[in-house]
Amino acid sequence: MRTIVVGATGTLGGEVAGALEARHEVVRVSRRGDPRVDLADPASIAALAGVLEDSDAVVCCAASAPLTPLSDEDFLPSLRAKLLGQVELARTAVEHLRDGGSVTLTSGMIPEATPGSAGGALVNAGVEAFVQAAAVELPRGLRVNAVSPGWVRETLMKLGMDESGGIPAKEVARAYVEAVEGSMTGQVIGRRAATG
Amino acid sequence: MRTIVVGATGTLGGEVAGALEARHEVVRVSRRGDPRVDLADPASIAALAGVLEDSDAVVCCAASAPLTPLSDEDFLPSLRAKLLGQVELARTAVEHLRDGGSVTLTSGMIPEATPGSAGGALVNAGVEAFVQAAAVELPRGLRVNAVSPGWVRETLMKLGMDESGGIPAKEVARAYVEAVEGSMTGQVIGRRAATG
Repeated sequence: MRTIVVGATGTLGGEVAGALEARHEVVRVSRRGDPRVDLADPASIAALAGVLEDSDAVVCCAASAPLTPLSDEDFLPSLRAKLLGQVELARTAVEHLRDGGSVTLTSGMIPEATPGSAGGALVNAGVEAFVQAAAVELPRGLRVNAVSPGWVRETLMKLGMDESGGIPAKEVARAYVEAVEGSMTGQVIGRRAATG
Repeated sequence: MRTIVVGATGTLGGEVAGALEARHEVVRVSRRGDPRVDLADPASIAALAGVLEDSDAVVCCAASAPLTPLSDEDFLPSLRAKLLGQVELARTAVEHLRDGGSVTLTSGMIPEATPGSAGGALVNAGVEAFVQAAAVELPRGLRVNAVSPGWVRETLMKLGMDESGGIPAKEVARAYVEAVEGSMTGQVIGRRAATG
């Protein structure tokens, strides 16, 4: 099985790529890598078609949205990359993956009613609604799911935040493996499903 | 009270503008009107700042998303207009509306698990998550809500669909009036709230 991991240089992406490597030919894709993709750049997503063509799965471990105030000038570009970029990756993958292949996107967990959470909440809700609805129209036995990774402990540590409620990246990675190797479609997989 | 109605030439927007007119100075904005705004065109949203500046409320009655297959080339542009356009309108309004003003966006109701519903489901979930989270960080007593209008009877008739389950536009318009004239924030108002 050939599996593309987008965002493979990130904390979570690296862990997911490592977890898949035992049973998959893993192709690591990142913003500065080769193959390269920048989810903020639609042309780079379209250019990934050739890589997707001979593959069975694509996993997108886009970075979780940090808190972004409404007035921040990065607010809209961030939505374009994290939401529309993932949607475009999924649409491109559907055209090119092998029969029976799968797409796994990343939503996330955002603290409720926190200033700065509107963008992240929008992205997460959008990605989750998208996979649930898109699953019913995929052709050729293709599947699409999302992982809601919650707060990754290593990411919290990097941000200098209290990591006690975080989930180790290694544990979160299991949810992605489950999405790729299982048979579910249209699902949002939270950490409970992964650790159960 | 001065209230801006975006999409005022549409079936629903026209009804909302009419319902508000008794107690508001209503400014009707549309894609081909004057003032003009095209939610797919960020520059036209920014250009609305002057109109928003002296106003108390903005209501966006963007058209409900029709079913759009994943492979449709309009899939991404449609998300940009209906989701990012509404978000940009809200962000611009927050900078310019008078103290205590309100923003009312439109989400919608999408039949579950129907091919072609992924874009609409994404937009609706995204808009609803956005208003719920954005409400907590709005300054100056500003409010933000969304109306989930369900299927408008007149729209179903125009589309040649069975209109028996549709709600008359006049009734749906009441939910928008409630959002503008009430004191709620961070809410998604469905037709039950409007008809109760």
